[in-house]
Amino acid sequence: MAIGNLFKTQLKVVNIGLASFKESLDQSKVPAVQVDWRPPVKVDEEVLAAVEAAAADIDKANEKAVKLILSGKPSLVGLGRALDVVPGMKKNLILHAGPPISWERMCGPMRGGVIGALLYEGMAKTPEEAEKLASSGGIEYSPCHEHQAVGPMAGIISPSMPVFIVKNEGHGNFSYATMNEGLGKVLRYGAYGEEITARLKWMETVLYPILKGALASLGRIDLKNLIAQALHMGDEAHNRNRAATSLLFRQLAPAIVRTCPDAERAAKVLEFIHGNDHFFLNLSMAASKATLDAAQDVPLSSIAVVMARNGTDFAIRLAGTGGEWFIGPAPVPDALYFPGYSKDDANPDIGDSAITETNGLGGFSIAASPAIVQFVGGSAADALRYTRQMYEITAAENSVYQIPSLNFRGAPTGIDVRKVIEKGILPVIDTGVAHKKPGIGQVGAGILSAPAEPFVKALIGLSKKLAKGKPNRAKKTVAA
Amino acid sequence: MAIGNLFKTQLKVVNIGLASFKESLDQSKVPAVQVDWRPPVKVDEEVLAAVEAAAADIDKANEKAVKLILSGKPSLVGLGRALDVVPGMKKNLILHAGPPISWERMCGPMRGGVIGALLYEGMAKTPEEAEKLASSGGIEYSPCHEHQAVGPMAGIISPSMPVFIVKNEGHGNFSYATMNEGLGKVLRYGAYGEEITARLKWMETVLYPILKGALASLGRIDLKNLIAQALHMGDEAHNRNRAATSLLFRQLAPAIVRTCPDAERAAKVLEFIHGNDHFFLNLSMAASKATLDAAQDVPLSSIAVVMARNGTDFAIRLAGTGGEWFIGPAPVPDALYFPGYSKDDANPDIGDSAITETNGLGGFSIAASPAIVQFVGGSAADALRYTRQMYEITAAENSVYQIPSLNFRGAPTGIDVRKVIEKGILPVIDTGVAHKKPGIGQVGAGILSAPAEPFVKALIGLSKKLAKGKPNRAKKTVAA
Repeated sequence: MAIGNLFKTQLKVVNIGLASFKESLDQSKVPAVQVDWRPPVKVDEEVLAAVEAAAADIDKANEKAVKLILSGKPSLVGLGRALDVVPGMKKNLILHAGPPISWERMCGPMRGGVIGALLYEGMAKTPEEAEKLASSGGIEYSPCHEHQAVGPMAGIISPSMPVFIVKNEGHGNFSYATMNEGLGKVLRYGAYGEEITARLKWMETVLYPILKGALASLGRIDLKNLIAQALHMGDEAHNRNRAATSLLFRQLAPAIVRTCPDAERAAKVLEFIHGNDHFFLNLSMAASKATLDAAQDVPLSSIAVVMARNGTDFAIRLAGTGGEWFIGPAPVPDALYFPGYSKDDANPDIGDSAITETNGLGGFSIAASPAIVQFVGGSAADALRYTRQMYEITAAENSVYQIPSLNFRGAPTGIDVRKVIEKGILPVIDTGVAHKKPGIGQVGAGILSAPAEPFVKALIGLSKKLAKGKPNRAKKTVAA
Repeated sequence: MAIGNLFKTQLKVVNIGLASFKESLDQSKVPAVQVDWRPPVKVDEEVLAAVEAAAADIDKANEKAVKLILSGKPSLVGLGRALDVVPGMKKNLILHAGPPISWERMCGPMRGGVIGALLYEGMAKTPEEAEKLASSGGIEYSPCHEHQAVGPMAGIISPSMPVFIVKNEGHGNFSYATMNEGLGKVLRYGAYGEEITARLKWMETVLYPILKGALASLGRIDLKNLIAQALHMGDEAHNRNRAATSLLFRQLAPAIVRTCPDAERAAKVLEFIHGNDHFFLNLSMAASKATLDAAQDVPLSSIAVVMARNGTDFAIRLAGTGGEWFIGPAPVPDALYFPGYSKDDANPDIGDSAITETNGLGGFSIAASPAIVQFVGGSAADALRYTRQMYEITAAENSVYQIPSLNFRGAPTGIDVRKVIEKGILPVIDTGVAHKKPGIGQVGAGILSAPAEPFVKALIGLSKKLAKGKPNRAKKTVAA
């Protein structure tokens, strides 16, 4: 077609890049097609060259890391009081989601969670007193992840809270998580006050001993098997846990009836679990944490073993870089907001729950959960697309965690930070969204991409390790 | 390409019709493609012309029938003893699956079920005594379907058996089904003897009163809502009921704990339900029966309201032809057989469970249940294909029963016998397979097509009604 003729025809726009450009065209009814493209993530050439040069060593390390992850066997083996069982727990210590953060930099919901915990612990009588104490220097803060623990949203664990004890029976390591409080005004969304304290006290004095007794009579509950079944039943084990909660309930109920001497208390405990389809979430997280921790120290590996957010920062850790956090600002999720709320109300991304994605579940397995799109937005086809994309940035497939609609293909597992950078595809996380003010609770749920910055920094961090590692590897070669 | 050259190239076979021809080619490693085609079902031209001439009237009747089906609201409202609650039940009456059948024509598993029921009722002391009584003329037999009831496989209901009572709250009609006995050697697969009698007695004396008490305290359980949720959780509500059983369990457990005075008995009841993922099957069937019975008398409608098999015959009933059964031989299913069994061991298709397909569930909604292909054979893509095909022969979509992977499209509902004949597409049923000898139990599970004969006969039956109806309709036209 001659150029002269081109402009005589009806023109159509192919928009590459920011979707908002296309939205304006849509409003003006100009035909336009959106191309899902983003520029490759920019990283210093020297870093890329160093990582490229060590490709064979990194591949070998990744193979080892992935093997450790895939052979994880998380089981629920008990419950205990955080102070008694969580490593490093102290009376004036509060654990929180995400990477380390000071009181000053904490977001609203996390501050609310801390206030709620201090009220529950009886360390303060009013919210004002709690806030004063929280900022006084008398309370220490530390990430759950640095204590073999995980927590959804604010992720607050205080000393008196009962926690699930999960054992990775493949490797002998343990992980810990609180029991899920349910929906509405709850501590993990930053709510505090009498109602919240009363519920936490009931969980400590009624729910905890009854579950502990029931579990003791059962011995253990195989969480890997349970999650595998739940993926066949429409859960993705992050934002949809209805099936896993149901299967857990079925296992626990007869044991609760046998071990609890008071029928009414037993019924109340059953109703509490029945009333909260997210009850299993904390166990899915603890199972993922126990699984990934087995691979947390594999030198040179570029596989992510933690993705976590504190509502201010988003951070990751790699198997090959020890305990180092690679941090960037947490994004505000584009979500399906509950009636009356919008993105203006939303807190930046928060919670340790992205440990499920790090383990191949959640957004990575969302194709197993077409029904979740009614909660997080999109279509069933989108769910398939998200999971298919995640195979591009992962090193393995988990043959136990299967996606039925992809003909039982294993969940994409083991995020390789090299692939994330090279392909410019960022991990997909499907998440709940907290109101930015403490105490209001959940305002939506949605799918979001992890920010690029932590992954860029992680690759730089890995390249530094490579530089340090070189002499040793050279020596070994000489010795061989 | 010149014909001369054709035979110099590598030839490939396109096989149309019987797949077994292609199997031989496969064995000889000849490249061949199977075309999924079957000849249109042959029906007398006069019948087709009569039905075609009345198309507008039939369409109008079908609209009414479908409206009645879609507006069904099945709820579990109670339990009772068959003799006390099932319409027409008598002390010497045994109900069975499928269309009417004499003792002489009954298949092995159905005879076994009758023997087991007579032993359970104490009407015979030994299997030999039971067999003698069964064939003596002293026992009457009648289809479950003629007593507002349904039963899986042999479908035996004897007078002392407890039954679920389901009410269609949209229309006021009731349906009945026994409680599911579990897997292994069970009455519905034709097993009888001490073990079977003991289990049935336990169900009568422990399970029944406890469930009755728990349900009374709850009032009712909304089965339509429960099935809708289960379709979002990988069930198709015929051969996969794990999610629905779990959701039912969650509702019942707290009520059982509160109403059962003995904790150990309560625990045993919970374990019994927990131990059987098919526990909900009988409720899915009763819910479908109550739903479809509302449309069982809509003159001129070509919508099927019953598909049922007695292990010898396969039969259907239409909304527009009253209680008439249209019968043909039951096919032997091509199934995924359990280790040690083959098609030679299989009994022809048996059970009232195809009432779920008649209601848009089971094989019709199999796309909601990709995980079921591991049990019945095929791939996740096959499941999608089966459901898509069923839209071709149905009159409506059920907006409450949704298929998540088809972006929440409603289940294909209301089999129009005209479309079945015209398109040559027969209803897909996913079913359990019984051993042909009594007492052995289930030997496999699979997908099968309903046989054509009952549908051809049904169309003929409908055309006869049209002929009878003509003078009336003509009169009406004159009067108008």
